[in-house]
Amino acid sequence: MSHPHPELTPPPPLPEGGLRVVALGGLGEVGRNMAVLEFGGRLLVVDCGVLFPEDHQPGVDLILPDFDYIRDRLDDIEAIVLTHGHEDHIGAVPYLLRLRSDIPLVGSQLTLAFVEAKLKEHRITPVTLAVREGQVEHLGVFECEFVAVNHSIPDALAVAVTTPAGTVLHTGDFKMDQLPLDGRITDLRAFARLGEKGVDLFMVDSTNAEVPGFVAPERGIGPVLDGVFAESSKRIIVASFASHVHRVQQVLDAAAAHGRRVALVGRSMVRNMAIAADLGYLKVPAGVLVDLKAVDDLPDDEVVLMCTGSQGEPMAALSRMANNDHKVSVGAGDTVILASSLIPGNENAVFRVINGLTRLGARVVHSGNAKVHVSGHASAGELLYCYNILRPRNVMPVHGEVRHLVANGALAVQTGVPADRVVLAEDGVVVDLVDGRASVVGAVPCGYVYVDGSSVGGITEAELKDRRILGDEGFISIFAVVSSADGKVLAGPQIHARGFAEQDDVFEDILPELTRTLEDAIAQGATDTHQLQQIMRRVVGRWVSGRLRRRPMIIPVVVEA
Amino acid sequence: MSHPHPELTPPPPLPEGGLRVVALGGLGEVGRNMAVLEFGGRLLVVDCGVLFPEDHQPGVDLILPDFDYIRDRLDDIEAIVLTHGHEDHIGAVPYLLRLRSDIPLVGSQLTLAFVEAKLKEHRITPVTLAVREGQVEHLGVFECEFVAVNHSIPDALAVAVTTPAGTVLHTGDFKMDQLPLDGRITDLRAFARLGEKGVDLFMVDSTNAEVPGFVAPERGIGPVLDGVFAESSKRIIVASFASHVHRVQQVLDAAAAHGRRVALVGRSMVRNMAIAADLGYLKVPAGVLVDLKAVDDLPDDEVVLMCTGSQGEPMAALSRMANNDHKVSVGAGDTVILASSLIPGNENAVFRVINGLTRLGARVVHSGNAKVHVSGHASAGELLYCYNILRPRNVMPVHGEVRHLVANGALAVQTGVPADRVVLAEDGVVVDLVDGRASVVGAVPCGYVYVDGSSVGGITEAELKDRRILGDEGFISIFAVVSSADGKVLAGPQIHARGFAEQDDVFEDILPELTRTLEDAIAQGATDTHQLQQIMRRVVGRWVSGRLRRRPMIIPVVVEA
Repeated sequence: MSHPHPELTPPPPLPEGGLRVVALGGLGEVGRNMAVLEFGGRLLVVDCGVLFPEDHQPGVDLILPDFDYIRDRLDDIEAIVLTHGHEDHIGAVPYLLRLRSDIPLVGSQLTLAFVEAKLKEHRITPVTLAVREGQVEHLGVFECEFVAVNHSIPDALAVAVTTPAGTVLHTGDFKMDQLPLDGRITDLRAFARLGEKGVDLFMVDSTNAEVPGFVAPERGIGPVLDGVFAESSKRIIVASFASHVHRVQQVLDAAAAHGRRVALVGRSMVRNMAIAADLGYLKVPAGVLVDLKAVDDLPDDEVVLMCTGSQGEPMAALSRMANNDHKVSVGAGDTVILASSLIPGNENAVFRVINGLTRLGARVVHSGNAKVHVSGHASAGELLYCYNILRPRNVMPVHGEVRHLVANGALAVQTGVPADRVVLAEDGVVVDLVDGRASVVGAVPCGYVYVDGSSVGGITEAELKDRRILGDEGFISIFAVVSSADGKVLAGPQIHARGFAEQDDVFEDILPELTRTLEDAIAQGATDTHQLQQIMRRVVGRWVSGRLRRRPMIIPVVVEA
Repeated sequence: MSHPHPELTPPPPLPEGGLRVVALGGLGEVGRNMAVLEFGGRLLVVDCGVLFPEDHQPGVDLILPDFDYIRDRLDDIEAIVLTHGHEDHIGAVPYLLRLRSDIPLVGSQLTLAFVEAKLKEHRITPVTLAVREGQVEHLGVFECEFVAVNHSIPDALAVAVTTPAGTVLHTGDFKMDQLPLDGRITDLRAFARLGEKGVDLFMVDSTNAEVPGFVAPERGIGPVLDGVFAESSKRIIVASFASHVHRVQQVLDAAAAHGRRVALVGRSMVRNMAIAADLGYLKVPAGVLVDLKAVDDLPDDEVVLMCTGSQGEPMAALSRMANNDHKVSVGAGDTVILASSLIPGNENAVFRVINGLTRLGARVVHSGNAKVHVSGHASAGELLYCYNILRPRNVMPVHGEVRHLVANGALAVQTGVPADRVVLAEDGVVVDLVDGRASVVGAVPCGYVYVDGSSVGGITEAELKDRRILGDEGFISIFAVVSSADGKVLAGPQIHARGFAEQDDVFEDILPELTRTLEDAIAQGATDTHQLQQIMRRVVGRWVSGRLRRRPMIIPVVVEA
């Protein structure tokens, strides 16, 4: 297998009749998924999602795919195909449509409904084309056949893109639950038919490639919920993802079966489930849904709260309940169910929530102590089925960190795909499909694009480093007014510090030396305020690291009066 | 079970003949373990460890138990009993000995050797008393019998403390591996004998109380290592905890069996294994250990590097190898084994390391894809054995977050301990054992004590909040020199900002308005610089939140010329 090539050079021109694939996100991280296909000078975008920041990216709101590669070619884009409605696949659409608002959005009914609700908040009305599984659309030079796949959100699609260069099958996110709640399975018949015709490049979800075996059916969660509901004599609070229609469906069904009413909590939960119910994806048992305001009038054993915050998000309802600062107060005997995965990096936040709820006397049921969650992504066993039924000519693992991509590639090789036909690419790596063979031909710049307050792309690693220093070490500002004419410090030096254990007065110890050093410097002819500022920085910096053992950010300002 | 009581009041005096137990750390967190036992006006301390900070505690080096409760009673302390040599049990000893350096340290040979090495770095020579399992020592009024327990470090001890008030059995950290490498099992015979005599209070490790079943034997890891070694044709790098003597032992044995030499990497790894080898706890096969400098001269298939950094610590050797900035360069065909647990909160850092090593072409074996780690703490199945063999009169779960303590208490109740005899306490909660009955009688203040640079206890939640704001939102300092006499701004206003996406010049847009507002204020009679500073803060704050959508820390300084 060809390993990722961080050191690649710019690619040569795309040969006549060849297809080019460049991922602008999603290869090397789980998030901001976006692939750009090119044929005959025209472009097709598959997905356009966001990535959520980690702790070493303080203050960052969102991370976007890097649009630089297509910024000057926006008019060449035929359409954006959206495989499903998760944030890591649709979240960046508003930012791309800001560059060109009339790029057609192509996706299933539910996917488009979710993205349109999001675009409304950005005051954008998109051009859309709704498609169903089995449908074939010619998007310019790209013939797209849409294939039903099963995932943790309804109405997900894979897309087979055919051009004279061959057929690319992009799975989007998928698993192969054989008994899904809505009966809509991943269409292996279509996979088989496409395989018979020949799949030249298979772009396949890698998220669970490291996980052996098969994902348990979503259906298996219902009986577990039933059991928990049966044991609960007081209120039940369930937290899950705001787009997991089938998980919410099973909570509604369990509530109906146990004579409980359900109030939805959290803006995104309320909005998404309203959409899903309108379109018929969520089947609400008669009279089960009630308004949050109404639950206070219901006895505890008739109440279910369905909320967000299963990842410990501090502002979400569940975290605030755990901290006892939410209008819903959790107490002894209440049951809280975290019907969700624990996304890596969120452990401390989630355990803080579990500890807080436990301290309040609640029983907390979570994937660590009960089968209340199944993954939405195919495990190794399912991926092997796909490789064997498709027998793709070339494989490009997508949607994962490097460890996931490598594990997925290894599965392909185990099923007989030649190692030199497995392309391991990262964001920005250029893969050309020419004469039925996919290969890495170069790379284009592809950085992290940070959304930060009102700024998109303004923050760089340098500012993040500044923030980490500010957060870890604090800062000191020093201010002095000098008159180089009479060689005196007229006002100050004043020191203002934040983020220190010590009170401000500790810094008074250094002021006399600071004044002396400044006046000496002026006496020796230093007039340039920049030079005097460097002196202040050096004196205070040395003193702080010796006395306080810290290396804060220091901002010296000298004003000449 | 009595739940934790955050709202408790100060305790009444300890009744004549009663025993008092107060944990100053370790109840409500995994770390900074410390329990204070009191009888007849005398104190016995069990363990004195550190807690490592989380991401919401930026810049903090360590977290200590809160010594305030004993600060005025240091002379009443008979001794500090150290159950084993892990940082979360011995790490805070230097800070307590700074308050009174001649408090005797009581522990096993290896435990004392580890703590003495640490104290040496703090230039403290302690008074020590080495004890062995089976030994009985009278530490003032406290009769202490030491009992062998099995853990992830050799020579761990439980301690049974008998006073006229009854017998307290404190397990320290333990599990019940029935076939440990060193043959030193947890002494259930002693547990049984103590149970027959009567254990009035059982203070028991809760870490794995939520985990059903039993911990697999450490011995089972050897064959897994053997298999990985057999498949490896190039270098092997193993990362684990620097105090895990038995894990290192198995790596040395596997290396010897496969004709490889082992170089220890990392200061703590080198230091601890030298101590363990000197004292005979680590049995080094002849000629297996080599110096790191020597490995360059060895063929790849004869090299093993045993290093620290299994938790993704950025400065540790392994992280630097993953970033390709360590003298040991990892390449295609190398094998890296993370023979360790994944401590919650470290996931992102560890996965960054795994991805980095994978990108370099290494095969990474970790507890997620192979049985290369077992826990050091008893699971639910083992704890049930303990409760049944001891039949304690009262139970106080220790060593865990609230969720762990509650789960452990539930196990006690399942074995027949009356629910009202299970005391769920958090740090600072006062538990009195009087007439054979343990109960919560109050609480003393017990905060987090942060070690931060040279400051111990100086940092409060307020400074941490400042740091989080600085890190997330950045800061702005504003300077102006004014003359209220002639109502003018003589110099400035100048704005200096850090942590922003925008360049400094963006702030020039606000300067005219700022000057105008200041001069208006002076014209209207404002002379107090504090008042003018508030005006600058308000003007800039409003502008920044509107224009940049951020809420930075703002430091305004006005000087009257």
